[in-house]
Amino acid sequence: MRSPIPDYLTDVLRAVEPDQSGATADYIPELAQADPDRLAAALCTVDGHVYSAGDATAAFSIQSISKPFAYALALADRGFDAVLEKVSVEPSGNAFNEMSVEPETGRPLNPMINAGAIATHSLTGPLGATPDERVARVIDGLSAFAGRRLEIDESVYHSEIRHAYRNRSLANMLRAYDIIADDPLVAVAGYTRQCSVLVTTEDLAVMAGTLANRGVNPLTGRPVVSAEVVRQTLSVMATCGMYDGAGDWMTRVGVPAKSGVAGGLIGALPGQVGIATFSPRLDRHGNSVRGADLFTRFTADMGMHLMEVPPAGPSAIRSRRIIGPADDEVALFSLQGDLRFAAAERVVREFQENPPEQSRVAISLRRVFSIDAVARRMVLEAVRRLTLDGHDVYLIDPDTVLPDPDPGTGGRVQVLHDLETFDTP
Amino acid sequence: MRSPIPDYLTDVLRAVEPDQSGATADYIPELAQADPDRLAAALCTVDGHVYSAGDATAAFSIQSISKPFAYALALADRGFDAVLEKVSVEPSGNAFNEMSVEPETGRPLNPMINAGAIATHSLTGPLGATPDERVARVIDGLSAFAGRRLEIDESVYHSEIRHAYRNRSLANMLRAYDIIADDPLVAVAGYTRQCSVLVTTEDLAVMAGTLANRGVNPLTGRPVVSAEVVRQTLSVMATCGMYDGAGDWMTRVGVPAKSGVAGGLIGALPGQVGIATFSPRLDRHGNSVRGADLFTRFTADMGMHLMEVPPAGPSAIRSRRIIGPADDEVALFSLQGDLRFAAAERVVREFQENPPEQSRVAISLRRVFSIDAVARRMVLEAVRRLTLDGHDVYLIDPDTVLPDPDPGTGGRVQVLHDLETFDTP
Amino acid sequence: MRSPIPDYLTDVLRAVEPDQSGATADYIPELAQADPDRLAAALCTVDGHVYSAGDATAAFSIQSISKPFAYALALADRGFDAVLEKVSVEPSGNAFNEMSVEPETGRPLNPMINAGAIATHSLTGPLGATPDERVARVIDGLSAFAGRRLEIDESVYHSEIRHAYRNRSLANMLRAYDIIADDPLVAVAGYTRQCSVLVTTEDLAVMAGTLANRGVNPLTGRPVVSAEVVRQTLSVMATCGMYDGAGDWMTRVGVPAKSGVAGGLIGALPGQVGIATFSPRLDRHGNSVRGADLFTRFTADMGMHLMEVPPAGPSAIRSRRIIGPADDEVALFSLQGDLRFAAAERVVREFQENPPEQSRVAISLRRVFSIDAVARRMVLEAVRRLTLDGHDVYLIDPDTVLPDPDPGTGGRVQVLHDLETFDTP
Amino acid sequence: MRSPIPDYLTDVLRAVEPDQSGATADYIPELAQADPDRLAAALCTVDGHVYSAGDATAAFSIQSISKPFAYALALADRGFDAVLEKVSVEPSGNAFNEMSVEPETGRPLNPMINAGAIATHSLTGPLGATPDERVARVIDGLSAFAGRRLEIDESVYHSEIRHAYRNRSLANMLRAYDIIADDPLVAVAGYTRQCSVLVTTEDLAVMAGTLANRGVNPLTGRPVVSAEVVRQTLSVMATCGMYDGAGDWMTRVGVPAKSGVAGGLIGALPGQVGIATFSPRLDRHGNSVRGADLFTRFTADMGMHLMEVPPAGPSAIRSRRIIGPADDEVALFSLQGDLRFAAAERVVREFQENPPEQSRVAISLRRVFSIDAVARRMVLEAVRRLTLDGHDVYLIDPDTVLPDPDPGTGGRVQVLHDLETFDTP
Repeated sequence: MRSPIPDYLTDVLRAVEPDQSGATADYIPELAQADPDRLAAALCTVDGHVYSAGDATAAFSIQSISKPFAYALALADRGFDAVLEKVSVEPSGNAFNEMSVEPETGRPLNPMINAGAIATHSLTGPLGATPDERVARVIDGLSAFAGRRLEIDESVYHSEIRHAYRNRSLANMLRAYDIIADDPLVAVAGYTRQCSVLVTTEDLAVMAGTLANRGVNPLTGRPVVSAEVVRQTLSVMATCGMYDGAGDWMTRVGVPAKSGVAGGLIGALPGQVGIATFSPRLDRHGNSVRGADLFTRFTADMGMHLMEVPPAGPSAIRSRRIIGPADDEVALFSLQGDLRFAAAERVVREFQENPPEQSRVAISLRRVFSIDAVARRMVLEAVRRLTLDGHDVYLIDPDTVLPDPDPGTGGRVQVLHDLETFDTP
Repeated sequence: MRSPIPDYLTDVLRAVEPDQSGATADYIPELAQADPDRLAAALCTVDGHVYSAGDATAAFSIQSISKPFAYALALADRGFDAVLEKVSVEPSGNAFNEMSVEPETGRPLNPMINAGAIATHSLTGPLGATPDERVARVIDGLSAFAGRRLEIDESVYHSEIRHAYRNRSLANMLRAYDIIADDPLVAVAGYTRQCSVLVTTEDLAVMAGTLANRGVNPLTGRPVVSAEVVRQTLSVMATCGMYDGAGDWMTRVGVPAKSGVAGGLIGALPGQVGIATFSPRLDRHGNSVRGADLFTRFTADMGMHLMEVPPAGPSAIRSRRIIGPADDEVALFSLQGDLRFAAAERVVREFQENPPEQSRVAISLRRVFSIDAVARRMVLEAVRRLTLDGHDVYLIDPDTVLPDPDPGTGGRVQVLHDLETFDTP
Repeated sequence: MRSPIPDYLTDVLRAVEPDQSGATADYIPELAQADPDRLAAALCTVDGHVYSAGDATAAFSIQSISKPFAYALALADRGFDAVLEKVSVEPSGNAFNEMSVEPETGRPLNPMINAGAIATHSLTGPLGATPDERVARVIDGLSAFAGRRLEIDESVYHSEIRHAYRNRSLANMLRAYDIIADDPLVAVAGYTRQCSVLVTTEDLAVMAGTLANRGVNPLTGRPVVSAEVVRQTLSVMATCGMYDGAGDWMTRVGVPAKSGVAGGLIGALPGQVGIATFSPRLDRHGNSVRGADLFTRFTADMGMHLMEVPPAGPSAIRSRRIIGPADDEVALFSLQGDLRFAAAERVVREFQENPPEQSRVAISLRRVFSIDAVARRMVLEAVRRLTLDGHDVYLIDPDTVLPDPDPGTGGRVQVLHDLETFDTP
Repeated sequence: MRSPIPDYLTDVLRAVEPDQSGATADYIPELAQADPDRLAAALCTVDGHVYSAGDATAAFSIQSISKPFAYALALADRGFDAVLEKVSVEPSGNAFNEMSVEPETGRPLNPMINAGAIATHSLTGPLGATPDERVARVIDGLSAFAGRRLEIDESVYHSEIRHAYRNRSLANMLRAYDIIADDPLVAVAGYTRQCSVLVTTEDLAVMAGTLANRGVNPLTGRPVVSAEVVRQTLSVMATCGMYDGAGDWMTRVGVPAKSGVAGGLIGALPGQVGIATFSPRLDRHGNSVRGADLFTRFTADMGMHLMEVPPAGPSAIRSRRIIGPADDEVALFSLQGDLRFAAAERVVREFQENPPEQSRVAISLRRVFSIDAVARRMVLEAVRRLTLDGHDVYLIDPDTVLPDPDPGTGGRVQVLHDLETFDTP
């Protein structure tokens, strides 16, 4: 069978292809000369499969799409407090080349605007790293996100650095406020190198996929940053990633995203997929025209919107039965599905509202596929309370979805692989 | 067994209780006199169970928490285009009493700031509704969200309207820009009535629960607004709900939320739970001090953060086996879990990468608990393509998780309740 | 002889007449309907002669030109401190309908923007005056500036008040900040009445002439406000009178001025002349197009620019001679011209550098036409010091340009009407 | 006799001396170390006499006081249009280190803020001048204003340039907008050298005196810039010289002024005097605390306020008599004082209202001390019209206050030195 996904990608590219509105960035000669007709899309699943269509292996400079990844690296290298002290996380409501800093402190409003991104670059690598070491760290880090060795496009770098007056203006202001400690020219050089890294649309999909996959590269399986860092990074992308159209993006597309002036655009759907598109013509906000259109279609077609509530599944409690011999009955509660807070609450409520009369209580997890941290805590607390109420409690967990159960003080539980124990008299 | 959830709520209230920082709103006499020590929290699950602790049945005025609900009502009553024409959806980055409108058009930046909320109030009810009819519509609508008849606190209304100069200033500016068509005094009176509706913390939890439950009130089971309206409303809450601290809230708490000057605070976790807290002392942003603390704890304890990627569950493909008689084998693919895009993709890929050699292909949904729209489309497309490849395709779906399967042109599928068909020769 | 001044005015009107650029104010129906071709200019000398040309007796509403006069009345009625507490004097750099208030206090930046003008109106009349009494006070005051009874154009008032949403927005904000104490609707009504007063171009010239004449109406001879109030008013007109083009106006025209949306424009050259023009078409700043052109020509033709340094006149010391009998010589210093600081300094320096050897010193003021306060003090101090040095000092002051001379402790002076005293032996 | 002026200066310094509020600029180490107690004042009359008191010969860096002078030099070197194209003249209403540029063009709002001053520095010298040549031009120019050779304080320069991040930020932004064409680092170096020029309080008084004296250095008698350039420069000082307190300064002090961060402060009273003070402690606006106090006292004591209307002098027409033989009478009009527009108008009006019956008309200028351009034109026009009316017209002008009289087409005038002509039959 031929997978319908490449067909879908091809179809959707064809649908947006006629739109020639917008223009390539004109302030960087190297970008202005880019072929404006190139068009690509790629998806990377959290288990590492990449789908793509169009010019998905054509290379272009990463530009601002490097910002969330460098932010993630800075958080990983220096910790949250050190980074938040220098760069805030508030939407700026301003265009991408404005000086959006807090009035008193000079702290950039967020890491997705240039002022914040220059400050963020300077927070990568260990404390005391030299500028060269920081650039090396960022390229290593971006490569780890992409799952292959990335390189700087020196001609793009030189084309940009020659006209980097706005960024130098920002860097000098940051230096004046002691937000960065480096020489401003050096800081801008490092940041511009970061922006000049060459990527393909497929690379970007993998990088976004790493964010969707809790910081573990789905291709290589290697952890790049922690889940906490990913959560912070995706949050900032959600509120600040699309410049002054953040609210419009969140309502229409609903996926944390970031665009770059070379025409790239990424989005990450936590736990599911990383997405990337490429089309160099930009709208007046600096976002890729056809890229934004593609994402709008992806959301409509793939149900990616963060605020899209999935229809309610079946109850977490599949059945409640009495098993075992008449004189030694067992109250068996069979759970099912993925247990998160809402499901665990339902289970706990069942024990409360209709407490089992039997002294033995078995909870079957055979049809449970995952339990998150809060559901685990709730189930174990229920076990503990059942114990304290005088019950003997059993977990039927053949696939070990709830490993090492410890119900805490006063609780006790016995793990079984099947129900046979109860069948024998 | 006693449920651990009320205990949890009680514990967490006790933890935040000593914090007496902040102050009640002083610009509305009726609010300034409120008992600043009151404290409550409540949860409402999507199947309608309400947990609460503290002063959860004490009544207070809803204030700005009415904004997202009135926005939802306006979207429902007038449609997205009519509402977006008058009120944008961009973060303002400003304090709650500023005039945050687009410079040329006077369009308020979003419906969560006062200017936008006054404009939104004027968009409730059918086109041509009188001011009184609009107020009636809003109270009816808020009541539908709460699941019981709500009333205006006339003394709060009169206390506020006497000092409503800022709102009148905003309303006159909106009138000057033709954003509203009413007399500004009348517009402010209507909006102030909306803010004076009395609610309890439990009411607010149910209202938030209605948002978490795709617009259907979990208590009454009655639909209040559509899923599309809920998606838009939650998106705007996510980027604009917490005034100028939207980015901080999104990173730390990660739940769409809205606060009110009387001390209420709500959050909605799509598909899972509505949450409300009440504590009248406010921080300098106008958000409840202890309420914000409670939400931070809920996020940490309950894994509610929108960007929290749940750990990957087991593969969507539980097993792949050959069954049936040797001369008429059936390739049986057993799926499991909740099927969304990522899971469906995995299934489709399996068919592509390892196409079954058998002419009969069965897909078992016995251990599948839910399928969202995109996964449904993908599974059916796979069925269609398998048919076109020459296979006979069967869905084993005893619980009808995929009702009315139609694989489209050229596709064909037979639905079975169990595997017995294949067993008989 | 026919005076060349009316001919000049006629010529200059003819020169600007062909310019039909700009447009009448469209947001007030009554103004939009005004005949856009009307054109007038008038001058009022400080001794009360009025020259005019064009439609100089056509009546139109005073609009914003009332602002400096109402400001002067408020300063006169309440004192500087009370007015400055509520309205600052800083340029706003903003368009005329913006809310330009200090962020913390809500104090309008200056009395020439609408927010400041509404606040200023509320500061006219005695403390405790009713709104009606304030309106009466302002009309009386404007009439005193004009030298005739002015009336409100009720149709203009009603046309404006019906659409006064922007001003009501401002008034409500001012009320919220306690800058005004009145009901905002009443405040706007009063201010709008002030703006609806009918004037002719000749009236405006007399009103400006009153400012040029230290607050004394040059026609009626009646004092309207004090010289200190005039100084403050002209200073504010100089920095804030021409909206966001204040700097351009100061460099090009160099005269304190104020424009109105009905097409009027006034300027006052301290000590010399009041000027008014009328032409309803406005530029994008809201200033009369041909009016601004006329003022630019007046400055070029009449040398009115405040920073225009007149060419140095002859020395203040016309001659120094020895007169009188040989045994009783008198050192006679003949001064000339208008004595201000620079001239008086020159005189004092002469006494210091070339002290007279004669015991008798006579200072002739026969050719001195005026002495300002500082020059008077300096001359008298010189007299005192000459006395202390042992001289007998005489002032020859036939026209009493230095009345009641009192040289202070240790000083002594004898006033003579001519030099004959010294001629007799 | 000892002049009272030095005594006055000494007294007024003593009066402000106890005020130790404010602080020296802390962001430039070399300035932070300055002796904060130093205090000086100096006056320079338009005929070149310098009075001073306190530490008036102590040297300090000129800092921002260089701005108006560099602006004058740029206007002189490049012309008004070229300078206005790059630097506007509008008040900024902002603090001195803000980026106050027009949003679209990047044009700095005025030459008194740093952005504008950096741009202005780059406009000094001839088009195509090298950076070094521009610095040389500025030092030469400042020296010409001061009347002696000024030097750069290299230690101040190096102290400032090391921390000039804000100015470099501004210069890079200016470069990004093509307001300057130089390398931003070089532009800041040149501007910082300009600010590091050493001056004394007496130097500053002479520099201000040059502005008061129509651009001619009162000490050396050498013209530095034209009267038109001075008018423009003083106008900009009036509206933009005192940062965000421009309106307050204009109302209270009323003299075009400029302050520097080293503690200097200058003011120029056109046609009369240049003033300078020195006291290093600054208020929060960056203006010298005691310097501002001194200027307030100077205004009160010396009547310097630009809007201070001098009391009306006597009529410009001293007398009107009939002289000469009965059969050949002469109508003699004796004028007096300084003739500017208002006086000339009075004279012209006399001819119009009471036309002489005699065929011979004599106008005596014996008691007239100066005639400005407009008065000259008006008197000559009156002469022309009297001629056309059939009169023979005579000017009695023994001191040649109206040289080369040419009444224009149809006019004729005879100049006499005295009245004797008429006495002889």
